[in-house]
Amino acid sequence: MNIMSKINPQRLLNDLRYLRTIGKYGSGVIRPAFSTEDMAARRWLIDRMVAAGLKASMDGVGNVIGRSANPGEAVLIGSHTDTQPQGGWLDGSLGVIYGLEIARSCTEDRRTAHFAVDVASWSDEEGTYLSMLGSRSFCDILSLDDMQKAQNHQTAQSLSAALMQAGLVGIPATKLDPDRYTAYLEAHIEQGPHLDAKGALLGIVTAIVGIRTYRITFKGQQNHAGTTPMAFRKDAGAALMQLAHVINCEFPILAGPRTVWTVGDVRLEPGSPSVVPGRAEMLLQFRDTEQQILETLASKIRQIVGELHDKGPVEVELEEVSPRCEPVAMDETVQEYLAEAAEIHAPGKWIRMPSGAGHDAQILAQGLPAGMLFIPSIGGISHDIAEDTAEEDIVRGCRALAAATQALLRQANPEGAVLKDEHRTSNVQR
Amino acid sequence: MNIMSKINPQRLLNDLRYLRTIGKYGSGVIRPAFSTEDMAARRWLIDRMVAAGLKASMDGVGNVIGRSANPGEAVLIGSHTDTQPQGGWLDGSLGVIYGLEIARSCTEDRRTAHFAVDVASWSDEEGTYLSMLGSRSFCDILSLDDMQKAQNHQTAQSLSAALMQAGLVGIPATKLDPDRYTAYLEAHIEQGPHLDAKGALLGIVTAIVGIRTYRITFKGQQNHAGTTPMAFRKDAGAALMQLAHVINCEFPILAGPRTVWTVGDVRLEPGSPSVVPGRAEMLLQFRDTEQQILETLASKIRQIVGELHDKGPVEVELEEVSPRCEPVAMDETVQEYLAEAAEIHAPGKWIRMPSGAGHDAQILAQGLPAGMLFIPSIGGISHDIAEDTAEEDIVRGCRALAAATQALLRQANPEGAVLKDEHRTSNVQR
Repeated sequence: MNIMSKINPQRLLNDLRYLRTIGKYGSGVIRPAFSTEDMAARRWLIDRMVAAGLKASMDGVGNVIGRSANPGEAVLIGSHTDTQPQGGWLDGSLGVIYGLEIARSCTEDRRTAHFAVDVASWSDEEGTYLSMLGSRSFCDILSLDDMQKAQNHQTAQSLSAALMQAGLVGIPATKLDPDRYTAYLEAHIEQGPHLDAKGALLGIVTAIVGIRTYRITFKGQQNHAGTTPMAFRKDAGAALMQLAHVINCEFPILAGPRTVWTVGDVRLEPGSPSVVPGRAEMLLQFRDTEQQILETLASKIRQIVGELHDKGPVEVELEEVSPRCEPVAMDETVQEYLAEAAEIHAPGKWIRMPSGAGHDAQILAQGLPAGMLFIPSIGGISHDIAEDTAEEDIVRGCRALAAATQALLRQANPEGAVLKDEHRTSNVQR
Repeated sequence: MNIMSKINPQRLLNDLRYLRTIGKYGSGVIRPAFSTEDMAARRWLIDRMVAAGLKASMDGVGNVIGRSANPGEAVLIGSHTDTQPQGGWLDGSLGVIYGLEIARSCTEDRRTAHFAVDVASWSDEEGTYLSMLGSRSFCDILSLDDMQKAQNHQTAQSLSAALMQAGLVGIPATKLDPDRYTAYLEAHIEQGPHLDAKGALLGIVTAIVGIRTYRITFKGQQNHAGTTPMAFRKDAGAALMQLAHVINCEFPILAGPRTVWTVGDVRLEPGSPSVVPGRAEMLLQFRDTEQQILETLASKIRQIVGELHDKGPVEVELEEVSPRCEPVAMDETVQEYLAEAAEIHAPGKWIRMPSGAGHDAQILAQGLPAGMLFIPSIGGISHDIAEDTAEEDIVRGCRALAAATQALLRQANPEGAVLKDEHRTSNVQR
């Protein structure tokens, strides 16, 4: 790893800080997929990519892809610039701006100017309409049916209406050309407490969790909360609370050491203090890197929903939502390159770890050798405006990812311009 | 009860049906307090009152009051024309249109034309901003502080903003003149299953339940639902589910035979499947006619909220909302008049019963002898668009309330016009 262009820490931080202003909300950002702010951020990114010498455009599902004009084996670096409904400033943005900084720093150094580094911001990673929409589309694993069913969980707007509103109708979707790339790399904040708690500075991701998400619907009878005796009620809300209790009793027995489950949203209708809820809805999600644990929990939730439904008086229905994510291992060779880079930039202070969060890398891994690098999240806080990372950790992560990128490119392009350039400029630059 | 004007069943039903069209939603109505639809219904009502010979206007809190020009002891008949977020067509409207029909039928008959029947539609009975706002204002038991704190539970709009939007700023609030009235009467659908289940046609209300409503707030730490291990979480939603479970274990032990409790709304923030909720809110309400049971449940909820808060890691806070309602007995003499009328119109098929719903009558009872008459709700369904009552039951109820009104007025005005009129017209009319 002796040939290395240098990243520019101030430029990296300035771009991250500027991106934070688009949809700024306190210390965080509100920039959900296809919102005005998300589209503004994507257009800004295209300009920055063009300024960095990339050919950049937005495709028909909102992916922004900046392509190097250089031939030869390329590395694709990506993540996403859309956010959670109230997201942190680094989630996704970090990995995209790392890609941008690595691409332009390569271009600036004659020793690396021939390297092809492509950069992507995938659309709707956070699943405002359909989780990892952009990377799924790029890897061509998205069915028309998935696209047609997708809708905004909060506003019920359909994905196709959102694409139309964003002006993307009629623009083709860019597809992966696997021959172009030697690897896909994605850096991300850890979004969890492990690095921070252990004093580790970098994490090499071994595998990404699988995710199952369910919508559980309760149909009872809306009624007056003062005049309907307890024994006469068909209270959809009370049935929901009961199911939540059973989940919290049963899941811990079946869970593995890193299994997580979450009731992320609940709605009671009509939502008035004086009305017995006639309808209720719960979103339940669970994750694990072990396929077997996912299957066990899936059978358990089917069983307890069935039992509650059969007991009555409220009808309970279970429906799996979003395309499910299966657990995915990261490429072992790419992990080795990342580990070597980590040992240079954080000697003895890096670990291997699974990712509890889903990432576009799990989709790209289906088409390319893929690897992920984590940097610490202060206090493990993420998906919250309080999310943050120390600036020195941000810069260190970019340096490590640049090192791995260049090592991969050197390995993939062993001859030609590298050595020639080095030779040609050696008298001038050294 | 031998002097009786006749109500006009078709006119009664037509007015109810017309009112149903204002804010129509399926078979029900959406006409929450101070909405465009609520204000339109109130203006329509003023026109109908004026056509019936009443002096009618809207006061500064939205009460529509139609006043008879006749002197002497009057009866005030009222209820409300605002609805629940998704309400039934008869809840409130029935009692107001009964008043209108009784007032105009008295006017049309020379034997009763001198009776003073005033009619009111109180504002915001349903508590969109402040439950029973109009009747509380009329009875002068509303503090400025209550008014200032009141806000729309769903939109967070303040009551003062709503009054401004409705064009009511600067209009004085009408206050009760207790010297004018001999009694306050209110008819209402039962909104419960008791009359329907027992085959009873009319209910004489003995007492109205007291109500306590609480907002319980949970403050945890919003975080990523994939990367935050279960043991590290401060999940506000999970704490809420746990509290709901404890309530459902503890309340049945302390409840009386007619106690009801309801979790009518729940919110998790930010409400995303991939985010551990950082904040949650629950609305809990309970009701009973026994003051002692209300006190016992109030101590219990304070205790279990305190225990959950102390256990951590989520902060839990209890706040009582809306002015509380204490249990109120109906006037015994007025009950006797209603019972006598019920025996004429539903011989042997009426019962005495408490009201599980709150009503403006419980406020008016603080200033006047007050009584309430219930008619059956099909299947006991209310606070739902499916709410309904058979037409013959609607007509029967109005006849019974008219009979009680006229008996009360005859008793209160024993001399004068009644007998003179009767004498003067006897040759013509008999």
